[in-house]
Amino acid sequence: MAVYTEVSDIELKEFIDRYDIGGLTSCKGIAEGVENSNYLVHTETDAFILTLYEKRVDPADLPFFLNLLEHLAAKDFVCPLPVKDRNGIALQTLAGRPAALMSFLEGMWIRRPDTRHCQALGAALAQMHIATMDFQMERPNALDRASWRGLVEDCGHAANTVHAGLYEDLFVEVEALEAVWPRDLPRGVIHADLFPDNVFFLADRLSGFIDFYFACTDAYAYDIAICLNAWCFEPDGSFNVTKARGLLSAYRDVRTLSTEEYAALPVLSRGASLRFLLTRLYDWLNTPEGALVKPKDPMEYVRKLRFHRTVSGAQEYGLDP
Amino acid sequence: MAVYTEVSDIELKEFIDRYDIGGLTSCKGIAEGVENSNYLVHTETDAFILTLYEKRVDPADLPFFLNLLEHLAAKDFVCPLPVKDRNGIALQTLAGRPAALMSFLEGMWIRRPDTRHCQALGAALAQMHIATMDFQMERPNALDRASWRGLVEDCGHAANTVHAGLYEDLFVEVEALEAVWPRDLPRGVIHADLFPDNVFFLADRLSGFIDFYFACTDAYAYDIAICLNAWCFEPDGSFNVTKARGLLSAYRDVRTLSTEEYAALPVLSRGASLRFLLTRLYDWLNTPEGALVKPKDPMEYVRKLRFHRTVSGAQEYGLDP
Repeated sequence: MAVYTEVSDIELKEFIDRYDIGGLTSCKGIAEGVENSNYLVHTETDAFILTLYEKRVDPADLPFFLNLLEHLAAKDFVCPLPVKDRNGIALQTLAGRPAALMSFLEGMWIRRPDTRHCQALGAALAQMHIATMDFQMERPNALDRASWRGLVEDCGHAANTVHAGLYEDLFVEVEALEAVWPRDLPRGVIHADLFPDNVFFLADRLSGFIDFYFACTDAYAYDIAICLNAWCFEPDGSFNVTKARGLLSAYRDVRTLSTEEYAALPVLSRGASLRFLLTRLYDWLNTPEGALVKPKDPMEYVRKLRFHRTVSGAQEYGLDP
Repeated sequence: MAVYTEVSDIELKEFIDRYDIGGLTSCKGIAEGVENSNYLVHTETDAFILTLYEKRVDPADLPFFLNLLEHLAAKDFVCPLPVKDRNGIALQTLAGRPAALMSFLEGMWIRRPDTRHCQALGAALAQMHIATMDFQMERPNALDRASWRGLVEDCGHAANTVHAGLYEDLFVEVEALEAVWPRDLPRGVIHADLFPDNVFFLADRLSGFIDFYFACTDAYAYDIAICLNAWCFEPDGSFNVTKARGLLSAYRDVRTLSTEEYAALPVLSRGASLRFLLTRLYDWLNTPEGALVKPKDPMEYVRKLRFHRTVSGAQEYGLDP
């Protein structure tokens, strides 16, 4: 539930007038996304998404994100395309915030993905990894393994108010993962936040990815692990191995998984669980009572982490080596 | 900030399939409005607003609202038009809620209306009053004078936590208004909630009214009084008589104000202040801490009420008799 920044009538009109897209006919705040302010804009010619980047996005990262979207679009990978103004500029300022106008991506996110959706996701994820192999920019993953110990410390003993013993458990997990974390896996651009609400479908056809604002340079297989967590667990917490097999097989049909990547999946999935557990836990402990954005339950990821700890090898995700 | 009811993928597809409007291509929750859940829907043919009616709307009132919109549209008064399904039905059920699909009204509401906007509003309000004179249905105003005493009692002494002595003041005001409230003014359909966010403009041209869910049968001049309050005060609390004159003159150019209506404007404006003061106060005192919708400040309407108490006659609103 978003829209943090209100844009005045005059500022909005002046902003739209910078572009060669016809006059403004409608602008409505969208109640989705939690990081930025998003508006659905209609002009005389088309529909667009206007994004104002709020405080969680570092302005220095915006050229990486916008160039990445342009790169993907040039490779026919469907994603929002930054629109350039009459001077060829995509990154703007509006209402005191960095802002960009994007092409409108038709499609809807799937509330209850089934196995076919997971297959479509796997194939598209591999296509995205391949399409960005010649992308020149890099962005470190600000939420990678090196950040987790600090996040546990930031949450502090208050973690135990969410679940008894959680604070101590998290330190044990951080140390365990530091000892076994795989190095030298194939790396490149990963989306790093590919939850169902960031993947659009038209009917049952995947129509594109959105919300690349956690995209960074990291192991491709870590992106897969994030998706296994976000797409292959049922609401009751059980792991759906059919969905996982669908996702992984479809991925591997497009991009070959090395033996090392395959073997690393259980550890990467533990790490991906811990990463979302920690940011959710931090938000849970630090969101004021009356906040507009309701924090997500960190316990969901405590349970996912526990599941992956019991996994002895990647074949338990339904895919043969 | 709205969207209370989430609609599942399957329900939404089945819902859209009832209509002859092409396949669904996008559906986004809108972060506007506080009473209902609103989605901006794109299909292969057009854009629509999907409204799910939440608990504050009485389902028994929906035929009045939907028929009113159809009546207005038939008279070329621009407002959202309920779309009928293949069986000719506008009022539907979706996700366990009454629901309706509406035509999409282009335009934007004006954050800082100027005198020209107030003039356009006055003319359109009079046109709406004339266009509905032959509308056959009636709906009592559930928030009319007869309801105010009960609303004060519902707020109770907690009112004094907002402003010292407010509870006692409100009773005095209710009794004063009961004594002087005008009877037998010309009556008909009024919008009853015509705040700037319910009036759309394209450039500086008024493009239509939305959100008729407080519409009811009451005095036309009371609708004008609501608009004086909502459009003619500056953010610092001062009354802008130029805007008021613009609104009233433009209204009178379209529909004649009787001597009684003109003379009643100060009392009606006090009553309109009290009505919004009371509902805002009630919400202020009864909204839980963590609610998604931030209640509006009742003190804004305490100050407006005080202003109208000082007004000796309607000429102080800038319009000669």
